[in-house]
Amino acid sequence: MYTHQKIKESIVAPDPRLAMKAQAKLDNLTKPKGSLGRLELIAKQIVGITGDLSPDLRNKYIITMAADHGVVDEGVSAYPKQVTAQMVYNFISGGAAINVLAKHIGAKVQVIDMGVDHDFKGLDSFADKKIGYGTANMAKGPAMTEEQALESINIGIDTVKSLAAKGCDIIGTGDMGIGNTTASSAIAAVLCDSDPRMVTGRGTGVDGDGLEKKLTVIKKAIEVNNPDRGDGLDVLAKVGGFEIGGIAGLILGAALARIPVVIDGFISGAGALIAQCMAPQCTDYILPSHSSVEIGHAIMLRKLDLEPMFDFDMRLGEGTGAALGIGIAEAAVKILNEMATFDSAGVSKKSKNH
Amino acid sequence: MYTHQKIKESIVAPDPRLAMKAQAKLDNLTKPKGSLGRLELIAKQIVGITGDLSPDLRNKYIITMAADHGVVDEGVSAYPKQVTAQMVYNFISGGAAINVLAKHIGAKVQVIDMGVDHDFKGLDSFADKKIGYGTANMAKGPAMTEEQALESINIGIDTVKSLAAKGCDIIGTGDMGIGNTTASSAIAAVLCDSDPRMVTGRGTGVDGDGLEKKLTVIKKAIEVNNPDRGDGLDVLAKVGGFEIGGIAGLILGAALARIPVVIDGFISGAGALIAQCMAPQCTDYILPSHSSVEIGHAIMLRKLDLEPMFDFDMRLGEGTGAALGIGIAEAAVKILNEMATFDSAGVSKKSKNH
Repeated sequence: MYTHQKIKESIVAPDPRLAMKAQAKLDNLTKPKGSLGRLELIAKQIVGITGDLSPDLRNKYIITMAADHGVVDEGVSAYPKQVTAQMVYNFISGGAAINVLAKHIGAKVQVIDMGVDHDFKGLDSFADKKIGYGTANMAKGPAMTEEQALESINIGIDTVKSLAAKGCDIIGTGDMGIGNTTASSAIAAVLCDSDPRMVTGRGTGVDGDGLEKKLTVIKKAIEVNNPDRGDGLDVLAKVGGFEIGGIAGLILGAALARIPVVIDGFISGAGALIAQCMAPQCTDYILPSHSSVEIGHAIMLRKLDLEPMFDFDMRLGEGTGAALGIGIAEAAVKILNEMATFDSAGVSKKSKNH
Repeated sequence: MYTHQKIKESIVAPDPRLAMKAQAKLDNLTKPKGSLGRLELIAKQIVGITGDLSPDLRNKYIITMAADHGVVDEGVSAYPKQVTAQMVYNFISGGAAINVLAKHIGAKVQVIDMGVDHDFKGLDSFADKKIGYGTANMAKGPAMTEEQALESINIGIDTVKSLAAKGCDIIGTGDMGIGNTTASSAIAAVLCDSDPRMVTGRGTGVDGDGLEKKLTVIKKAIEVNNPDRGDGLDVLAKVGGFEIGGIAGLILGAALARIPVVIDGFISGAGALIAQCMAPQCTDYILPSHSSVEIGHAIMLRKLDLEPMFDFDMRLGEGTGAALGIGIAEAAVKILNEMATFDSAGVSKKSKNH
């Protein structure tokens, strides 16, 4: 069990000299310097993270963390609570968007029950890490205890540790949990010091009245619980979710294991904010994927100091954006590993008169 | 041989009812409606283009068109002219960025010599369609004859026709040609009715003085040749290039063969402008990939009424952006083809009270 203190002390920033070595290698490949833009930046970051000048991203995992939220009792979601468990079955049988996109990029999907309000039976390739049958209703008190919050973080860390031991090269984060945009907006409001209205969107699709109700609930949850914005674990416990804690743990675990972690959209962003608050240097290990439709996501990314790779107007979660991002990251390291140099290809360099 | 008239008459817009059918199919998959954003739009477009509600993009080609430019004599490029031929050898031996990225997405690269100033010998998997040893210097007169312009277009059309006969599902366009940003900027200035300064950038990397010289040359080429902005073939002949005509032909050929065509950056954009001018309805068959660093590219895309998928600050050409775009397009059609429906997965739909 990692304590907050131990996590903070154990994560170190990547060595900047490695990124410089990677740039030198990139500059000797048969292309004008810097002409592959973001791909070159991604390759450099991954070299820095892994310490390997020819990093291989063959062994890829998307980890989709699922949990329920007591706050759904307040009527904040367009979908019934049962959908969380139904979608877990869908993930396991391979019919969800994340299954399709993970397969497209050659990644495996690992689904983790962090606290779904349902007893799953007879499921293969499924990790049962249930902390509870959903969180408590944060509009009336803390979503979970401080112990549960630390447990959720540790489940994430341990997940990456055991995958790393099996040779995992990169992970993507994903989520499933009806009601989890409500918790994520509350986290963003607290940790980005934002008016809740600026970070609260329609989630899976509530209408105008539903959005106002959601906003009222978020304001009430923050008022009732008064989370401490200097303490990520406190924020997670009071207005978070089990899967959000799990995602924060995945990010911290990736930083501990020196593995790149591609984060998905809004819910993963909330997990990243918790992780950043607990150990700020962990953000060096994050590759952001897409920019979500959720209005608060841009504010989260600014706080995290991360530039998204692309904006496809997506708002599904599950890890779908992360999967596409991993495909891009793999393209970037292949450029570094597989291209010819000017010398080996017999190509002239830039003229001296320019 | 297709005449301009025959091309224009033979291209028809995709049937909009197909895109509606695709949307109905997408809306029955286990995700909130529209939550996969751009991926859903791409899937719909490809259904409309191919006429197939379950389109398969297994058989993928990047076609990299190479040619030299007489205008390089004016000193407009940061690289010597020989680099065009050297890079063709690099493409054939598999060491260039386009080889790496095409392999990453499972596409084949077809390199076509449209008019490189070099005799290639003993090259396998190489299409020799040489129209000439580079264009003439457009600063002093037309880059090519009207017959050569039509020939370059027809080579592109025929290339797609023969690939389609072999079962090709999607193509990406690419280019190699020292000096071709100069020709492309001239085309953009004429066809987007723009001040040359607004569409002229640094290409492979000319410095400040080089950029001013390049701009002067482009203005002179337009003044000397006075291309007719209502006639794409005239613009191509006067200030274009053999590979740019080839790319225009690929786009027109894709529209004729009802195959989606993913275009690369600035040079492919110039080809697309020529194709649009010749047969406006062809743009329905185009999927734009990235937004290039070249300042004129955004203006081109606006004229083409195309929204780029992503912006990675790339400026390499070869088809590198198109390759990444094809990977995204394939992800989009897999969503349409492989996801479970609400009924088949036993997942509840949206609540009625929202």
